[in-house]
Amino acid sequence: VPDLEILETVRWRDGVVRILDQTRLPAEEVYLDLATTAEVVDAIRRLAVRGAPAIGVTGALAVAQAAAQIGGHSAPEWIARVQESARVVAEARPTAVNLRWAVDRVVSVLWRAAGRGAGIESLQGLALDEAQVILAEDLALSAAMGRHGAQLLPEEGRVLTHCNTGGLATAGGGTALGVVFEAVRQGKRIFVYADETRPLLQGARLTAWELQRAGIPCAVLCDGAAAWLFRTSPIDAVLVGADRVAANGDTANKIGTLSVALVARAFKVPFFVVAPRSSFDLSLADGRVIAIEERDPEEVLSWQGVRSAPEGVDAWNPAFDITPAGLVSGWVTERGVERPPFAETPETEA
Amino acid sequence: VPDLEILETVRWRDGVVRILDQTRLPAEEVYLDLATTAEVVDAIRRLAVRGAPAIGVTGALAVAQAAAQIGGHSAPEWIARVQESARVVAEARPTAVNLRWAVDRVVSVLWRAAGRGAGIESLQGLALDEAQVILAEDLALSAAMGRHGAQLLPEEGRVLTHCNTGGLATAGGGTALGVVFEAVRQGKRIFVYADETRPLLQGARLTAWELQRAGIPCAVLCDGAAAWLFRTSPIDAVLVGADRVAANGDTANKIGTLSVALVARAFKVPFFVVAPRSSFDLSLADGRVIAIEERDPEEVLSWQGVRSAPEGVDAWNPAFDITPAGLVSGWVTERGVERPPFAETPETEA
Repeated sequence: VPDLEILETVRWRDGVVRILDQTRLPAEEVYLDLATTAEVVDAIRRLAVRGAPAIGVTGALAVAQAAAQIGGHSAPEWIARVQESARVVAEARPTAVNLRWAVDRVVSVLWRAAGRGAGIESLQGLALDEAQVILAEDLALSAAMGRHGAQLLPEEGRVLTHCNTGGLATAGGGTALGVVFEAVRQGKRIFVYADETRPLLQGARLTAWELQRAGIPCAVLCDGAAAWLFRTSPIDAVLVGADRVAANGDTANKIGTLSVALVARAFKVPFFVVAPRSSFDLSLADGRVIAIEERDPEEVLSWQGVRSAPEGVDAWNPAFDITPAGLVSGWVTERGVERPPFAETPETEA
Repeated sequence: VPDLEILETVRWRDGVVRILDQTRLPAEEVYLDLATTAEVVDAIRRLAVRGAPAIGVTGALAVAQAAAQIGGHSAPEWIARVQESARVVAEARPTAVNLRWAVDRVVSVLWRAAGRGAGIESLQGLALDEAQVILAEDLALSAAMGRHGAQLLPEEGRVLTHCNTGGLATAGGGTALGVVFEAVRQGKRIFVYADETRPLLQGARLTAWELQRAGIPCAVLCDGAAAWLFRTSPIDAVLVGADRVAANGDTANKIGTLSVALVARAFKVPFFVVAPRSSFDLSLADGRVIAIEERDPEEVLSWQGVRSAPEGVDAWNPAFDITPAGLVSGWVTERGVERPPFAETPETEA
């Protein structure tokens, strides 16, 4: 039975951060209870939880968890210790701006409340409250992005996606794929072509799993096949997520996004980035200074332990690339379909 | 010890067609003795031998083998039976024009000799002679393409390749990768970025194996990463092979080639097709009528036998795409670096 209900990708359960282990999908739907900061950091690093918004929520919950587990005598000394855990969490992955943003947001709530004289026990409660607010906001942001983005799709159409940008990439709603879910909830008939997304195959493993669960027709294709797809089939839009968007609109996203954007431009297919404003880093003038995480070459040279290349061969494995703003038709955020310069209005406007 | 000697990809050995089993590489270097037409067709279909020139040579040897095994009383009736085997061989893969070309070439030798009164035993010898000439010509063609193509590369440089176009794609010399081998033999220092080439990973498995064997430095990358490579590193040329080139230069090659060509154009990287004239089908005005083989979706949905996508999900798996002539900087053939309209001079000019 198709299920358009949102996933429980990341949740708080009695002191543990419970995540749906994305490394086990699609074979098994296994939830992990992460009991310590070290376990959360490990889960983020090995991509058991992934997707910029989902990592942000996870990071916020990890700080609340550290706050609950750390003892102390004075609030400032205690916050400094919580902050040390927060720093470790924030550095688990360098490219996604949401992680640092969410972690910093919880920590800054602690400093502000401590400044007003709150005690440690009260601060522990505030940390969890703030993390839960970030989670709830994430669900609301997904819903808002879905509504704004769904208007871009026809009653019957085809979209191409890259990587996984569904419920699994967020607390449960989705960014780019969330737009498709909302369009289908509205009764639109959408067919999704899902880039398999090497090296970690998030498209084949996760996007296809989410679409199948929701009863939305789809086909997986190899990343290099996008150009031939555009050449031979009418595609209405490319929808991708973002790990970080600079002030001018330059967009860091999963490796392969830039190739898709260039190819979409060649065939005049609209190319939309769907990301919450928390993925925007307006302190960066453009994409040139965005740090690009390079990951283990082994991710390219093998998959699930089966090797392709001979032993001793090297690989080049950037995790992200940067698509220049000029190739993007629009940025779907919780505020609407935006274009640079992006207004710097308060986050609470969402 | 680096080995720049040519591979023995396809050879005739006492009545059997001996091939290097490319499905076992790079883990094992296993040679298969194919004793019947059915075994040859199976080997071609499951890509134990692949690459348009290598398939052509294999097809010619298969016709010689069928000729040796088939008996008969009158030459015309005998040739008709050989021709029936030849047809089965020629249809093993639809896109590569070399296969039909090589098979037809052996069969037409038989008809011509029969017209001059040759008997069956004599015709059997002629079939093998012609197949061996096609093999020897293939080695000579590779050498010529290598010489012409190597002039396009700087003394020290970097190239990107797609799929496998080395000795394994030919009788032993190579097309696009053969150009790199020849440049290195001339003392040039070339670094090769090898697209892994999903779905069957010929780049990671075969190109990396050949480069490692030859001591040429290389790095494997995911197909979608090409744009970011061009954006972040100076690349001197893209070198690809071809399965079929139309009269106007439209070029059918491994799926993903069109994406690479578009991306190369965006970053002004020269894009060369390296293919013998036997891959050119001047009877086709342009690429629109080239048949594109669609292969088993399972090739996309799993990776070397390990499944990525959930059961029941569909995939789109075209084996080739067509790059319009306008994206190609030049076609390196045994005759030089050519551009359309391609001169229709005799094949023997090579």
